[in-house]
Amino acid sequence: MAEEQLNKMSIHNDEDDVVDPWNVSTKSESGLDYDKLIKRFGSQKIDQELIDKFERVTGKKAHRFLRRGIFFSHRDLHSILSLHEAGKKFYLYTGRGPSSESMHIGHMIPFMFTKWLQDVFNVPLIIQLTDDEKAMWRDIKVEEARKMAHSNAKDIIAVGFDPGNTFIFNDLDFIGQCPAFYQNMVRIQKCVTFNQVKGIFGFGDSDVIGKITFPSIEAAPAFSTTFPFIFGDKVVPCLVPCAIDQDPYFRMSRDVAARLKLPKPALIHSTFLPALQGAQHKMSASDPNASIFLNDTPKQIKNKINKYAFSGGQATVEEHREKGGNTDVDISFKYLTFFLEDDDELAEIKKSYESGEMLTGELKKIAIETITPIIQEYQERRAKVTDDVMQEFFKIRKINV
Amino acid sequence: MAEEQLNKMSIHNDEDDVVDPWNVSTKSESGLDYDKLIKRFGSQKIDQELIDKFERVTGKKAHRFLRRGIFFSHRDLHSILSLHEAGKKFYLYTGRGPSSESMHIGHMIPFMFTKWLQDVFNVPLIIQLTDDEKAMWRDIKVEEARKMAHSNAKDIIAVGFDPGNTFIFNDLDFIGQCPAFYQNMVRIQKCVTFNQVKGIFGFGDSDVIGKITFPSIEAAPAFSTTFPFIFGDKVVPCLVPCAIDQDPYFRMSRDVAARLKLPKPALIHSTFLPALQGAQHKMSASDPNASIFLNDTPKQIKNKINKYAFSGGQATVEEHREKGGNTDVDISFKYLTFFLEDDDELAEIKKSYESGEMLTGELKKIAIETITPIIQEYQERRAKVTDDVMQEFFKIRKINV
Repeated sequence: MAEEQLNKMSIHNDEDDVVDPWNVSTKSESGLDYDKLIKRFGSQKIDQELIDKFERVTGKKAHRFLRRGIFFSHRDLHSILSLHEAGKKFYLYTGRGPSSESMHIGHMIPFMFTKWLQDVFNVPLIIQLTDDEKAMWRDIKVEEARKMAHSNAKDIIAVGFDPGNTFIFNDLDFIGQCPAFYQNMVRIQKCVTFNQVKGIFGFGDSDVIGKITFPSIEAAPAFSTTFPFIFGDKVVPCLVPCAIDQDPYFRMSRDVAARLKLPKPALIHSTFLPALQGAQHKMSASDPNASIFLNDTPKQIKNKINKYAFSGGQATVEEHREKGGNTDVDISFKYLTFFLEDDDELAEIKKSYESGEMLTGELKKIAIETITPIIQEYQERRAKVTDDVMQEFFKIRKINV
Repeated sequence: MAEEQLNKMSIHNDEDDVVDPWNVSTKSESGLDYDKLIKRFGSQKIDQELIDKFERVTGKKAHRFLRRGIFFSHRDLHSILSLHEAGKKFYLYTGRGPSSESMHIGHMIPFMFTKWLQDVFNVPLIIQLTDDEKAMWRDIKVEEARKMAHSNAKDIIAVGFDPGNTFIFNDLDFIGQCPAFYQNMVRIQKCVTFNQVKGIFGFGDSDVIGKITFPSIEAAPAFSTTFPFIFGDKVVPCLVPCAIDQDPYFRMSRDVAARLKLPKPALIHSTFLPALQGAQHKMSASDPNASIFLNDTPKQIKNKINKYAFSGGQATVEEHREKGGNTDVDISFKYLTFFLEDDDELAEIKKSYESGEMLTGELKKIAIETITPIIQEYQERRAKVTDDVMQEFFKIRKINV
């Protein structure tokens, strides 16, 4: 029964759109068809009704990522909002597979949104760095993976998290310091067969056993019983903000939850920030020219956007004035939907660019002026994240629940 | 290459003899054909030359288990003896999958021998209780498995181990207290594919992922780097005394060792103590009438042997006097080979029984008189193993290296 259910959740990558934890791409210039993805994954669209509930329950204006469909899909977000409405607690869990490359602004999206959720709901946040995953999938040693995790942790902290209610850990150090984590891994691993992970993640017979078992490690933190030092023996529901490519892990976790008689983790999924070269690919650290890094200088940001940001404008000024620009494919415009706060201003820019009044160069200038200060403020915070600051977040401790 | 090597180590259970970590049986009344097993597993026979080396190097008379082929097979035991001869250290590692049933005398064999090895070599001993394995394979909860492990630990301690150089742990509690353990699990899991564990252990697609990854957990303690609190950063070779059915785990560990550039664990394998009803089966806790338990009373021991111990004697006294008894199938005699220390006395009994001079009743009486005091002395030690004593063995600490 459970196996059957899970097998239905298989990876069925579309011929045009590929979205799984290891690959994201599309053939379409305007980017992934996220509505089709919702259908394929069996999640729910975040509609106006849900956004209204969000605002009513929290008393806060919805984040621009919600207003603009950047966080576009969910599972059980209604229940989490009702829980909050009833004065009950939940916690947030997100994470990252650390990498040696610098983090780029695409990596920041789920963390920026998570920080906002934490501010709005005032709940504990747990951030997992899956250095074990990286050691397993890539040709890097355990020691190297741990170092990457610690360095990435500082980058994440600089998004602005509060050590008062945020716990960060890397698997390779933490699992060996938390018996409840390993015990929950065992409970999860007992509920999931090879057939199931084959269906959900596409693993094969020649995959190493560490890959096959890894999903249990990303699943464990979605259960509050994994962190007795934070939650005691209280069972606290979990909301996972993440990019949609991580959904397979949580489809599995939700199935396991039912068998362990624990609350199913709720989810809120983001789209991907596109690469500079176009929306067929998400921003990727492996191509420096495709990405704006968190340690780029204002000059680098300016040059990259001017040089590489794919334009929806026309070939000549005359033609552009006549036909107008295409905001569906224009990367500078897409970036503004992520980073420009003012809805009216964004609507104005869209209208002006599509009518041909605004030229590509002008649009790029606005994108540069919007992104640069965000990165600069980030860099100021990043400079203050010392080893000591990091240790505060990593300390195994009771946090504000 | 490594995969190819490992695939050659597949489980190929003979049509007559079945020996793998989950099943041991034979169709032959005289028990398993251990010489054939050595060939099938690709291990080495313990021959007189090796026993002589053992005695020369240690200056001690070989244990009766060695003299009588009860520990019959090995891998790299020569290297361990040479190491000891050169004044270098190694460590011992053995274990048990805890169970709710009482331990029986068959379970004691590897532990009795391990204690003797530890006394002879004066080296650290590590004992793993795989409660995670039991939680995975059987319909029991994590909490129950942990309790079983702690209760079994006391039974093992009563064999006579010294807390000064013995560290005992159960996986479900210890892995979450030792980052080096989880890190080594990851290193091992990275070297072994599903194809390989399929070949070695016979796992299939509908097995849960916890089973598939479990071999990495039995392998990890065979590397000294798993226990930095004992060995620091010294790389110390390992000798594993175990029943031959556990060999698949260490064939895998030895292959992994080569890839991790760590010493291959050496092995010394025991045969199985047969069930009372006959040598087709090993003694099993699930059948109370087939086993002598460590908490049996002298009366129970006497009754069980008299009532159930399969006899190699003839149907009538007359026929027995004429044809003599068959020591190849007689369980009381087999038990004497395990438990009667005096070689001359054993030879005398064999001669007398085979000639028909000694009757089955007389042989059983000797078996009862040999086994009963061993169990009684064990029970006296067991009564002294309090929770505090147990905690001494479980404490994560530097031990005599």
